[in-house]
Amino acid sequence: MEADMTVTARTADLTGGRPVVPSRGVLRPLGLHEARITGGFWAQRQQVNSEATLEHGREWMDKLGWTGNFTAEAGQGSLDRRGREFSDSEIYKLLEAMSWEAGRHPDRARDDEIAELAAMIAGAQSADGYLHTAFGGPGQRPRYQDLAWGHELYCAGHFLQAAVARSRTGGDELLPIAMRLADHLCREFGADGRDAVCGHPEIEPALVELGRLTGEQRYVDQAALFVARRGRKTLPPHAFGWSYFSDDIPVREAHVLRGHAVRALYLAAGAIDVAVETGDDALLETVAAQFDRTVARRTYLTGGMGSRHMDEAFGDDFVLPSDRAYSETCAGVAAIMVAWRLMLATGRESYADLIERILYNVVATAIGDDGKSFFYAHTLHQRTTTDVLPDDVEQLGFGGGPRAPWFEVSCCLANIARLLASLSTYFASVDAEGLRIHHFADAEIDTTLADGRRIGVRTRTGYPENGDIAVEVTATEGGVWTLALRVPGWAAGASVEVNGVAQEAGRDQVLVRREFAVGDRITVRLPMAPRFVEPDPRIDAVRGCVAVERGPLVLCAESVGGALDLDRLRVDSAIAPTESDTVVVAAHTEQLADRSWPYGASKEKVPGQRHPVSVPLIPYHRWARGGPSTMRVWLPAA
Amino acid sequence: MEADMTVTARTADLTGGRPVVPSRGVLRPLGLHEARITGGFWAQRQQVNSEATLEHGREWMDKLGWTGNFTAEAGQGSLDRRGREFSDSEIYKLLEAMSWEAGRHPDRARDDEIAELAAMIAGAQSADGYLHTAFGGPGQRPRYQDLAWGHELYCAGHFLQAAVARSRTGGDELLPIAMRLADHLCREFGADGRDAVCGHPEIEPALVELGRLTGEQRYVDQAALFVARRGRKTLPPHAFGWSYFSDDIPVREAHVLRGHAVRALYLAAGAIDVAVETGDDALLETVAAQFDRTVARRTYLTGGMGSRHMDEAFGDDFVLPSDRAYSETCAGVAAIMVAWRLMLATGRESYADLIERILYNVVATAIGDDGKSFFYAHTLHQRTTTDVLPDDVEQLGFGGGPRAPWFEVSCCLANIARLLASLSTYFASVDAEGLRIHHFADAEIDTTLADGRRIGVRTRTGYPENGDIAVEVTATEGGVWTLALRVPGWAAGASVEVNGVAQEAGRDQVLVRREFAVGDRITVRLPMAPRFVEPDPRIDAVRGCVAVERGPLVLCAESVGGALDLDRLRVDSAIAPTESDTVVVAAHTEQLADRSWPYGASKEKVPGQRHPVSVPLIPYHRWARGGPSTMRVWLPAA
Repeated sequence: MEADMTVTARTADLTGGRPVVPSRGVLRPLGLHEARITGGFWAQRQQVNSEATLEHGREWMDKLGWTGNFTAEAGQGSLDRRGREFSDSEIYKLLEAMSWEAGRHPDRARDDEIAELAAMIAGAQSADGYLHTAFGGPGQRPRYQDLAWGHELYCAGHFLQAAVARSRTGGDELLPIAMRLADHLCREFGADGRDAVCGHPEIEPALVELGRLTGEQRYVDQAALFVARRGRKTLPPHAFGWSYFSDDIPVREAHVLRGHAVRALYLAAGAIDVAVETGDDALLETVAAQFDRTVARRTYLTGGMGSRHMDEAFGDDFVLPSDRAYSETCAGVAAIMVAWRLMLATGRESYADLIERILYNVVATAIGDDGKSFFYAHTLHQRTTTDVLPDDVEQLGFGGGPRAPWFEVSCCLANIARLLASLSTYFASVDAEGLRIHHFADAEIDTTLADGRRIGVRTRTGYPENGDIAVEVTATEGGVWTLALRVPGWAAGASVEVNGVAQEAGRDQVLVRREFAVGDRITVRLPMAPRFVEPDPRIDAVRGCVAVERGPLVLCAESVGGALDLDRLRVDSAIAPTESDTVVVAAHTEQLADRSWPYGASKEKVPGQRHPVSVPLIPYHRWARGGPSTMRVWLPAA
Repeated sequence: MEADMTVTARTADLTGGRPVVPSRGVLRPLGLHEARITGGFWAQRQQVNSEATLEHGREWMDKLGWTGNFTAEAGQGSLDRRGREFSDSEIYKLLEAMSWEAGRHPDRARDDEIAELAAMIAGAQSADGYLHTAFGGPGQRPRYQDLAWGHELYCAGHFLQAAVARSRTGGDELLPIAMRLADHLCREFGADGRDAVCGHPEIEPALVELGRLTGEQRYVDQAALFVARRGRKTLPPHAFGWSYFSDDIPVREAHVLRGHAVRALYLAAGAIDVAVETGDDALLETVAAQFDRTVARRTYLTGGMGSRHMDEAFGDDFVLPSDRAYSETCAGVAAIMVAWRLMLATGRESYADLIERILYNVVATAIGDDGKSFFYAHTLHQRTTTDVLPDDVEQLGFGGGPRAPWFEVSCCLANIARLLASLSTYFASVDAEGLRIHHFADAEIDTTLADGRRIGVRTRTGYPENGDIAVEVTATEGGVWTLALRVPGWAAGASVEVNGVAQEAGRDQVLVRREFAVGDRITVRLPMAPRFVEPDPRIDAVRGCVAVERGPLVLCAESVGGALDLDRLRVDSAIAPTESDTVVVAAHTEQLADRSWPYGASKEKVPGQRHPVSVPLIPYHRWARGGPSTMRVWLPAA
């Protein structure tokens, strides 16, 4: 943890909208109108999100009766309620996504839909502020009797997040509902209330954000209380263990994230928010160390987290199987939430490296090209082809198979949607010295520096295909400031030119400090040759394998139809991958003798016939888009 | 499948008791009094089973109210019923174990306990023969409305098995209840009845066994109907998929076992029984091929089956992670059921190889020394030490951690108990030529050959510590016959002496054919030097690793307290393992640098300091008996 955390005032125009607005930190995040993505890879995905995904989500939630739960017996809950205990939260996350989207592109129809949903939700809120369609109504289970699985505070948290997003983008329909709900929670779970936590963290960051928005300290205090209470085994015993709920060890005493990955990551995000707002640097350092250790030992090459299907959990250190890798989409979104918070607090670009890795290899992989199908989990090794699923059927399982239009537990869609709608706000920030550019896209940035000077830049790039990034200064009020561009960890040998003059690139940043003029051009070149990577030798699952990366992209070998037996490939890792239209690695196929028993003395091995073969690789995020296929990220080396 | 399957008549004294009594097959199984284990490794475990495990099981089933379910409102079910839907089956399996035990060692107290339980169960049976404590009573769910999860036919199957065991060991309390129950099932699920199967196979082998015992063809026909109905997706959709229930593909059309391992294996056992009794060689061949392929591609080194925790299922071919290997105890028992049936049908000793592997490395591993604690699952790699659990607390989870006294799902205890109580019947058999000895123990065999001649042999051995097996003929009525001893697949170089004269050992059998005289001595020497084994290169999880076996035992490295970092060991597999008091392999420890990101270019690797170390290995079945520890079966090779 860097000690020189500087306090940055809330100087930005709040109507621009930002997901996280800490009152202090090394970086100040930019709003939707301060940083806009105007073209390329992510602009295309934002467009699909706006034009297809949001509507797709709404249609399914209506079709399955999840929205209907709010209106059936408004305010009283419904006896024939549909969906799981957490279905309310999907509507809230969708509402959050719509709010960011409305902030990005004002749209009367979108505003009307938000107002409609807000009225519906307001109608379901109890007089005392309680809000959940599954509990407390006639014939329903009572409130707060099943904190482990009821998801009552989890849903509340997502509603608060939606309200914060809507308020930060200029709408006021949700905030009164949110404050009534939050005040109810403060009464119910305050210092003199129930000494309890929710089985699924989420209320923690949400309450802090609401406190940041409203300036009401009681919400931050309540979040701090929830963070302090976690880890004392107040939830009931379960087969998955208390670690599943992060309720096994107090937050301040843990060394690593464990148990259910999304739960652990949402809690970490909330703990960071609490630490930042309460000036608790010890807590901040502890959670940062837990996350750093999780990244170093419990994270897939893609940035995906959580290796266990049964309990959607982190495994032990270095237990990262490629087969049936879990790497839940929502854990990717949650890890970005944590990394972004740590980045704002510390300014460390390594967190942006991780965010980029997750964006290109988990988030981009999760979505079908039409924006209407999703991966819930992200295997890194598909051994057999799987059936194509009908696109009008809700999927009961989470793992394997092609992207599905909907899941019984369909948390990924709206989580991706809210991230994509607000994505540009993660791409740049302001620090004490000037502007920082973390991610590369065709973009326009128009903001104010810490001292209030207005500046603007325009970036142009073919990233991630191409590693050249051109930045042009479009506005400056004079005086010296710094333009900093992240140099990804993989980009050793990056070069930079300032108005055509070569300058030295730093290890993790290009820093250009000068009295800028409008029209100044900074051009960064990141080396994009494909490269082999090897795993830590403690990751048993991929021992003796190599993977190939190109720029921020993890590549994979895919065999549509499964005709090429990928499990027989042996890559010659002494020959660097080559690139023409596609990246190719040299390999041979090995004849593998079938035996009646798959273990034996070394001498029993059948000397295989070797056939040389060039194996084309594709970006991992492109896999499973051409029909049923087999796939490997990690390729055994010869 | 061998074509020369000979029909062997039911010539044995049935009161001897045998778990499986096919009406035809290459081998005729021996009863409890024809084959007795008199000392050594398994005798000790049979004694613990008799003296501790059966009582331990009964105590827990009483304490948790599982036995009480039968008496609370006898015959009507109970409103406050305790335990899961399948708890009845645990009492039935215990009853089966008690029956074999009573057959092995007549004991008035044991007979009294069986009679008490029989009366209790009879009281809970409905007038029409239905028997289950969770369904059909006042306030309970109706019968047969939840075939996927209700376990009604599963429980019925285990009751039939108990009744068969009791009848074959001379008791008659259970058979009338069983026949009423089976007749009810034939009416309810017959050709004109419900076109349905149970979510958990088990009724299939049970009905065939009841048919064999009683000579009533209708039970065999009903079993055949259940086998034919399976695989047509008549069970409702579930997140685990129809494969979980083996209901995805008809038995005759499948190529490999898949889905929930115990379900698949019990079904395979039933399908073999049906095939044998109905003369359906095509079905027999199909199921044998499925099982053989499962052994070749979906089985752990220990013989354990099922690699997935979430659904207790087989994974795809070669997906056999050591970390959190599932390898459920009950799947081991079930695999022995299948292998034994195939062995009886075909005479192939390779099935006895597999049974031996499972016995020494799954079954022996499952039981605590005191017979009162159990492994539900069998990991092959424990990375972190786990807490010691209290010995009076029911465990909610199945995976990881030390042996537990009881589980919420506590199927393993009684399954092991019924196997151990009947174990000697798997050790030898009679074929058309003479006597076959499949497993090695101090034992006494007293039986009749296929032509009715009485013979006897006594075996003495220090197996599995020692590979010398001495067989002495104790009875013969003259004439030529064959004494066959299995030569395990690993025992290349086995030697044999007949009355001191060396004779050639065959590849998988020692065959001694002669006119035996009482006192003839056959001595077989199996080579017991520890040996390295390597995995099929398609098993990604253990690529680049070796394991060590000695005789039938899989060995492992264990570090009590975790002081030695097993994940840093690199074994020098060019140096053969040595043996003095214990088996030792040469290795070095590698310094593994911690990095902030666990993947990188090869040149980034920190050249580790190497410290040579001799690593002592212990039998895998001995692990986790000295306190919390880390453990590896597969050791990375240098």
